Amino acid sequence: MKDYIKVDEWKIIEEGFDPHYNKISESIFSLGNGRMGQRANFEEAYSGETLQGNYVAGVYYPDKTRVGWWKNGYPEYFAKVLNAANWIGIDIDIDGEQLDLAACTIQQFSRELNMKEGYLKRTFTATTKAGKQVSVESIRFCSMADDETGAIRYTLTPLNFDGEIVITPFVDGDVKNKDANYDEKFWDEVKKGTAANGAFVQLRTKKTGFEVATGMRVKITQNNSPVQPEFLSIQKEKYVALQTTIEVVKNQPIVIYKYAANVSSQNYDAATLQDVLKATLQRISDKGFDTMLAEQAAAWAEKWKHNDIIIEGDASAQQGIRFNIFQLNQTYTGEDDRLNIGPKGFTGEKYGGSTYWDTEAYCVPFYLATAPQNVTRNLLLYRYKQLGKAIENAASLGFKDGAALYPMVTMDGTECHNEWEITFEEIHRNGAIAYAIYNYVRYTGDEAYLADYGLEVLIAIARFWSQRVNWSEDKQQYVMLGVTGPNEYENNINNNWYTSKLAVWCMKYALKVAEQVKTTDIAKYNALIAKISFNGGDEATKWNDIIEKMYYPYSEKLGVFLQQDGYLDKEQILVKDLPASDRPINQKWSWDRILRSCFIKQADVLQGIYFFEDEYDMDTIRRNFDFYEPRTVHESSLSPCVHAILAAKLGDEARAYEFYLRTSRLDLDDYNNDTEDGCHTTSMAGTWMSVVEGFGGMRVKDGKLSFQPFLPAKWNSFSFHVGFRGTLLNVKVSKEGVQITNNSDTETTVLIYGKEQLVQANADVILEAQ
Amino acid sequence: MKDYIKVDEWKIIEEGFDPHYNKISESIFSLGNGRMGQRANFEEAYSGETLQGNYVAGVYYPDKTRVGWWKNGYPEYFAKVLNAANWIGIDIDIDGEQLDLAACTIQQFSRELNMKEGYLKRTFTATTKAGKQVSVESIRFCSMADDETGAIRYTLTPLNFDGEIVITPFVDGDVKNKDANYDEKFWDEVKKGTAANGAFVQLRTKKTGFEVATGMRVKITQNNSPVQPEFLSIQKEKYVALQTTIEVVKNQPIVIYKYAANVSSQNYDAATLQDVLKATLQRISDKGFDTMLAEQAAAWAEKWKHNDIIIEGDASAQQGIRFNIFQLNQTYTGEDDRLNIGPKGFTGEKYGGSTYWDTEAYCVPFYLATAPQNVTRNLLLYRYKQLGKAIENAASLGFKDGAALYPMVTMDGTECHNEWEITFEEIHRNGAIAYAIYNYVRYTGDEAYLADYGLEVLIAIARFWSQRVNWSEDKQQYVMLGVTGPNEYENNINNNWYTSKLAVWCMKYALKVAEQVKTTDIAKYNALIAKISFNGGDEATKWNDIIEKMYYPYSEKLGVFLQQDGYLDKEQILVKDLPASDRPINQKWSWDRILRSCFIKQADVLQGIYFFEDEYDMDTIRRNFDFYEPRTVHESSLSPCVHAILAAKLGDEARAYEFYLRTSRLDLDDYNNDTEDGCHTTSMAGTWMSVVEGFGGMRVKDGKLSFQPFLPAKWNSFSFHVGFRGTLLNVKVSKEGVQITNNSDTETTVLIYGKEQLVQANADVILEAQ
Repeated sequence: MKDYIKVDEWKIIEEGFDPHYNKISESIFSLGNGRMGQRANFEEAYSGETLQGNYVAGVYYPDKTRVGWWKNGYPEYFAKVLNAANWIGIDIDIDGEQLDLAACTIQQFSRELNMKEGYLKRTFTATTKAGKQVSVESIRFCSMADDETGAIRYTLTPLNFDGEIVITPFVDGDVKNKDANYDEKFWDEVKKGTAANGAFVQLRTKKTGFEVATGMRVKITQNNSPVQPEFLSIQKEKYVALQTTIEVVKNQPIVIYKYAANVSSQNYDAATLQDVLKATLQRISDKGFDTMLAEQAAAWAEKWKHNDIIIEGDASAQQGIRFNIFQLNQTYTGEDDRLNIGPKGFTGEKYGGSTYWDTEAYCVPFYLATAPQNVTRNLLLYRYKQLGKAIENAASLGFKDGAALYPMVTMDGTECHNEWEITFEEIHRNGAIAYAIYNYVRYTGDEAYLADYGLEVLIAIARFWSQRVNWSEDKQQYVMLGVTGPNEYENNINNNWYTSKLAVWCMKYALKVAEQVKTTDIAKYNALIAKISFNGGDEATKWNDIIEKMYYPYSEKLGVFLQQDGYLDKEQILVKDLPASDRPINQKWSWDRILRSCFIKQADVLQGIYFFEDEYDMDTIRRNFDFYEPRTVHESSLSPCVHAILAAKLGDEARAYEFYLRTSRLDLDDYNNDTEDGCHTTSMAGTWMSVVEGFGGMRVKDGKLSFQPFLPAKWNSFSFHVGFRGTLLNVKVSKEGVQITNNSDTETTVLIYGKEQLVQANADVILEAQ
Repeated sequence: MKDYIKVDEWKIIEEGFDPHYNKISESIFSLGNGRMGQRANFEEAYSGETLQGNYVAGVYYPDKTRVGWWKNGYPEYFAKVLNAANWIGIDIDIDGEQLDLAACTIQQFSRELNMKEGYLKRTFTATTKAGKQVSVESIRFCSMADDETGAIRYTLTPLNFDGEIVITPFVDGDVKNKDANYDEKFWDEVKKGTAANGAFVQLRTKKTGFEVATGMRVKITQNNSPVQPEFLSIQKEKYVALQTTIEVVKNQPIVIYKYAANVSSQNYDAATLQDVLKATLQRISDKGFDTMLAEQAAAWAEKWKHNDIIIEGDASAQQGIRFNIFQLNQTYTGEDDRLNIGPKGFTGEKYGGSTYWDTEAYCVPFYLATAPQNVTRNLLLYRYKQLGKAIENAASLGFKDGAALYPMVTMDGTECHNEWEITFEEIHRNGAIAYAIYNYVRYTGDEAYLADYGLEVLIAIARFWSQRVNWSEDKQQYVMLGVTGPNEYENNINNNWYTSKLAVWCMKYALKVAEQVKTTDIAKYNALIAKISFNGGDEATKWNDIIEKMYYPYSEKLGVFLQQDGYLDKEQILVKDLPASDRPINQKWSWDRILRSCFIKQADVLQGIYFFEDEYDMDTIRRNFDFYEPRTVHESSLSPCVHAILAAKLGDEARAYEFYLRTSRLDLDDYNNDTEDGCHTTSMAGTWMSVVEGFGGMRVKDGKLSFQPFLPAKWNSFSFHVGFRGTLLNVKVSKEGVQITNNSDTETTVLIYGKEQLVQANADVILEAQ
């Protein structure tokens, strides 16, 4: 845990430079616009500890799998987010000495991530070994308004000298992934070139053949007047630069404007990339930095209008929640249904891949409420488009007749992960994908999605489950053997309650949706069943038999659902009785000891109760919560939010708040000592859920939003925006009561504490505290 | 399956050269003497497919672990058998063209492994591209009589020309392991040198710092007269050679004698290695090739006297069983208690490590019966000496108070394996180590071993088990969670019957031996319990409580012990109903499907019944055999022998023979398509067990050997030698009956078909067939 980040409601601020924190800050201050992004590396050279990272969404490399011992069925490749060409670089040479903060004396340093307007600002004053002092201010952003572009304004002022400064803005594609399995370089050069005030490299990924052209335009002013330098062109492998020498005068600033763009063969014919790049660079350099920055602020203002959460009376919490919302929006904008939400967004390489079940279980609720319906729809379409590969994946594991198993980790639908207990057994992910369809339709009312896309996915998933269970002669029930639930601290277990529950729900829901589509659109229904050879008779009969005769482990004595068959054979110790020196157990205990213990990494039975809470009475929820929570170590950042939401539902406000705190500033405070690898992007959605579904008690009930809010004791108020079926509501919870404001032209009815309230267009309702 | 090996009772013969089979033959024709060994690579250069391998027992390299995903507790290193300096090499250059069978036309080729006398002979006639035809005969062996040495006689005859031949015998230490995780070289050069007729390199292993000096002496004769060539000395990195040019005359043979030795810092001060090597080389070159070869034949004759099995009426079976006995003796001679039996012996690199539970479970019975008592005792002492590391290993996994977990794979006692389900969970190996102590004492009567060494190991192992079980409140019994049994097709299961049974047996046996030592040698007992703080009171009470209240899964309905808790929840399919296209399932099915299936890789419950057969009546054994055997796919070469022995016990002679056949020629016929990686050395002991314990029905009953033999229908007779408590017996089973010959000066009483028979010294008893 660190606390070097300064508290501010709209900004993330670092003051003073500690090289030990540099990689952490590079993650935290990352920039992105859904299409491209980068870690907060420096523009000028830096010879200290750094993890260089520039990323282009959807451009990946299938790195050859590395395993200790091969298991049949493992994928050959692990698709990795690629470290792409560095377009931010500006080398500065002062009288033959490279400007490098690792080599200079630093008089002042600050980094500031302006979340309101979406830019990164850095300032420093430093003195070279030769005693030349300069001050620098750089402002940089990835444009939300024009998402293939970014810009930098780099202002350098000599403070104690006149002299020569050599300035070398560059684009460098000769980069590696730090996590490459075999230390290979993933890019080949296609072409490159330099012009009077610009340069580009066009690179092609090995194996996948993605081409990305990355280019820059450079403008320089001195003392507020344009300089027209004769640039020296420098070309090396995958590298282009423009170099110029400027006579500087003490206290007269040099400003370098660097306009950059990434255009990719995902979106254009590869042969045209150079032209597209040229036009793009022309457009933004014509527009100019200030206009681009203003557009950026406007784009972010529009985002915040839909998704801001305001917390009064707790600036640290305010900063934390805004940071989470900011990073989620930087990672995924929902404009392209080929993209998804990587677990580290554009903030690091770790975990490769882009898509985990995190998307469906945690991110979908966030985007449903805070972004246009289309954004979540694109997340669903992403999986729809990969259905063929999910069917292939299942077939490679021995399933048949169109059964689909979506991958644990993927880029393009192909499985990338290679731990057997996860890849082959953590199959509950399939259920989360079905649940997200249900969740989307429940929230948006977009029933048409089911006929067009949803049902096809649901049937394929239901087919998988029906083949994955088997009849136990011994139990005279269906069982599901060899699975790993969301609690990854138990592997290869039998009859994980959550997975079995979800599997049966999927079959039920698929049958229900099939009936519904048959009723509402028989033509589409017939077309679909012909396409996928769905046998509504025999298949449905089999599914119904499983639905009826599925085995779920349950303790009569305790009245709780059992996480798995053998759970009560484990020694029942509580987390509170664990010595502090044993925690986190994933660092202190060997894996087998963790597996044998009753300790739970993240909500498992409780995750199921969260999904299907309407099926259980409060007593059941409480018994399960009271049983599992004391056994949960929350060593996944995806765990506390579910506990916060259930604690809130059970009226335990203090604990709900306590669970919320565990992840609200996870990265800002480097709580797990791993933020240097990148931010925990997907779990940020969980923090949002803690506030909106936990403190706000927001649910969808029969097509209406329902709220059951409470105000955490330490706060004066909190408020959040949610969009729902054409309305845009602001819900404010304060000591005075609950105020719901309808910032749209459509009236709507909500439930507050179970009671219906009409909220007229552009009006509000206030429910005063008793 | 291949059948290119010619059948011969005492020889392994390959006639004609098929390059596709070369790596297989390199494994099969391997040589070893327990101290050093090598694959059957060619002396002259070979540019075709080959796996070069020279090995020095006990000299290993800890290769940095490679994993896909790190689990806490994994070892940092995997100790590997090292590919060591090649001392067999003799480059031959004929008129500027290198002799290389991959480049020549081959008129004749044969390889012959003479098992009776222990040498490899190779002959060929080949023509170079330039049309020069030569015939070559090479005879090579690793000396059993002088186990740091080897010799080659390489006879080359020009068949159609007079001319110049350049001969370059060399020692080359610039070698790699094919299975190096990171493609590193493992040896550094210490020194090297050449002399008038010899040369050497001294190398040091990285990290482990073993030094090995490898040297050669060369003598050449031409047309039966010594040649005294002026050798040109050649030195490269880790490489030394002597080169000479000889004027050859058509049909006049050149004979190159190459004497070689490996001396290692395991046995000598590293500083003296060069001197030791020199003296060793002097000794053997003085002795001369023919004398060495005669000593080799004598040493093997002595071995065969103790361990030969003669099968009449089936030459193929005869060849198979002798090959197994031959390879086992080449691998381990029992003279050094720091050495053990690698799963591939000196025939390949695969699986690294040297010691698996194979040693205790399969090899101990073989060496007990076929070698002096001291040989098995050294295998036991090997583990005794590693007890400290086994205690460290257990401590690193959270066990305490002197509990020991022996590693799954090791060289020096440190765990090397890194698959969590094996490394941390396949803990039954600990039981096999205790069982081997029991087995040794039962066979030899060496009770003193228990007081001196055995009890200390037994207590440490019992401590482990007592901590590894836990009390299940639910069952009100002790359970053992998260284990992998011998059937590695089930992982992380609960209450594996075999492991639980063995664990309880270990605790019982440790208590029994403690009582026994206390009674017979109170001084040693007291010294030991002080040394290891054994609390005979509380600890014994706890163990007895576990012994009494252990849970074993059992099906009342079927009357069988259950392999694990959930076994009967699995879909019960029989192997016979599996389509041929699905087998072997470990190549055709994904790992999760294998795990969920009821198919058993190797004897598990049946392994336990084999160990503790006296505890079960025939009906129980039959029920379990009839239940498990049809579910067993025998995809481990260690499986059929246990089935053969139990089938024999149940009187099912046909099936006993069928199980025997599955492994009897495993490598000779390349049954599993993997002999090119090396031979399945440890499973060869299982084949021996099938014959002696299966067909011979040999057991130890109350200090006496007992036989219950039958003659497989296809054989005329079989006979085997066994040493037992100072006697040397030959048991011959033929159509005429059973003849037991006592080839020793000590009389002994044996049981034949349950009836006591005195066998007087140097006499026999015959029990005629009815």
